[in-house]
Amino acid sequence: MAMIEFSVVPIGTKSASVSQYVAQAINIVKKYEGQIQYELTPMGTIIEGDLDLGMEIVMKVHKDLFSDEVKRVVTNIKIDDRRDKDLTLAGKMKSVMEKIK
Amino acid sequence: MAMIEFSVVPIGTKSASVSQYVAQAINIVKKYEGQIQYELTPMGTIIEGDLDLGMEIVMKVHKDLFSDEVKRVVTNIKIDDRRDKDLTLAGKMKSVMEKIK
Amino acid sequence: MAMIEFSVVPIGTKSASVSQYVAQAINIVKKYEGQIQYELTPMGTIIEGDLDLGMEIVMKVHKDLFSDEVKRVVTNIKIDDRRDKDLTLAGKMKSVMEKIK
Amino acid sequence: MAMIEFSVVPIGTKSASVSQYVAQAINIVKKYEGQIQYELTPMGTIIEGDLDLGMEIVMKVHKDLFSDEVKRVVTNIKIDDRRDKDLTLAGKMKSVMEKIK
Repeated sequence: MAMIEFSVVPIGTKSASVSQYVAQAINIVKKYEGQIQYELTPMGTIIEGDLDLGMEIVMKVHKDLFSDEVKRVVTNIKIDDRRDKDLTLAGKMKSVMEKIK
Repeated sequence: MAMIEFSVVPIGTKSASVSQYVAQAINIVKKYEGQIQYELTPMGTIIEGDLDLGMEIVMKVHKDLFSDEVKRVVTNIKIDDRRDKDLTLAGKMKSVMEKIK
Repeated sequence: MAMIEFSVVPIGTKSASVSQYVAQAINIVKKYEGQIQYELTPMGTIIEGDLDLGMEIVMKVHKDLFSDEVKRVVTNIKIDDRRDKDLTLAGKMKSVMEKIK
Repeated sequence: MAMIEFSVVPIGTKSASVSQYVAQAINIVKKYEGQIQYELTPMGTIIEGDLDLGMEIVMKVHKDLFSDEVKRVVTNIKIDDRRDKDLTLAGKMKSVMEKIK
């Protein structure tokens, strides 16, 4: 089980607003509900689940963004992969919360 | 008003667990409550507020992590700075949510 | 043709030095010489070539880092994918250099 | 002495080409020659030197990009700060090169 955070930024879109592209990304991620957990943050999307499946989803989102209007996409991905114990979205938060004064 | 996502990773810490360092970071960020908004995600911390103040906080967190045990810190920062309209944690989420089917 | 920059950071390695892990990564990337171009920078590795092949290499590097000593790996990946014209390591640099005073 | 890699991406620029903005960034960094070392890579700019001065330069570049045409800038920054021994652009490369077969 790994955790993958990613964000996609289309370049050369005329408008400074990119929320429609984020929505397009989430609509793809949502199709995998049941197989992975995901969370939308104000700065990206976090997927928790099998590493290969997670990366397959991220790459699908990246490729799906290209269109007649979008000719360039910059995608940032951060993988946090821990194999000595399970990483879960809830577990990571809980572990930090317990240590905050 | 800008949005800043950051994560700090101490290198060479013997243990694979870094939640204590994340908690240390949050305890610093919390001192600025009222001046900035912040949100803890499973992959980092997001600050919303004045760009210079936000960066001052991030750099304070980065520097605070060094100790006898921690001699190297890798910090990732992503700034999303939009000046044609206000960026807020809630507003960014709302704008995406409205566009999701 | 896409450009992929990546860096791998093992967490919990006792030592603050990670150059052996970077070398381990490069040794994997080098096996693909001829199929992709690559460049080592002081902060990561940049691959230029087919997107799917490039990502396959990055994921191979990520997975290869795990061992008895390394139980957690944080990998950062940035994809710059442009489809209206060819992106090459040399071309991107040249384009910027021409515009510098 | 720290190492700082950064890249700036203007959002909503009509064109998919951003090399003019990278050149604009380099022209600012160049003014600090003598105080810091820097290196342009196909994916960003790497500064080596005093942490506070380096971050001051990065923030100057970020702010300088805003104009009538550019209303949103996404800046990614990665700080690698090691205090048990000096980090230099040349030293990091050398240390890896020696370990590559």
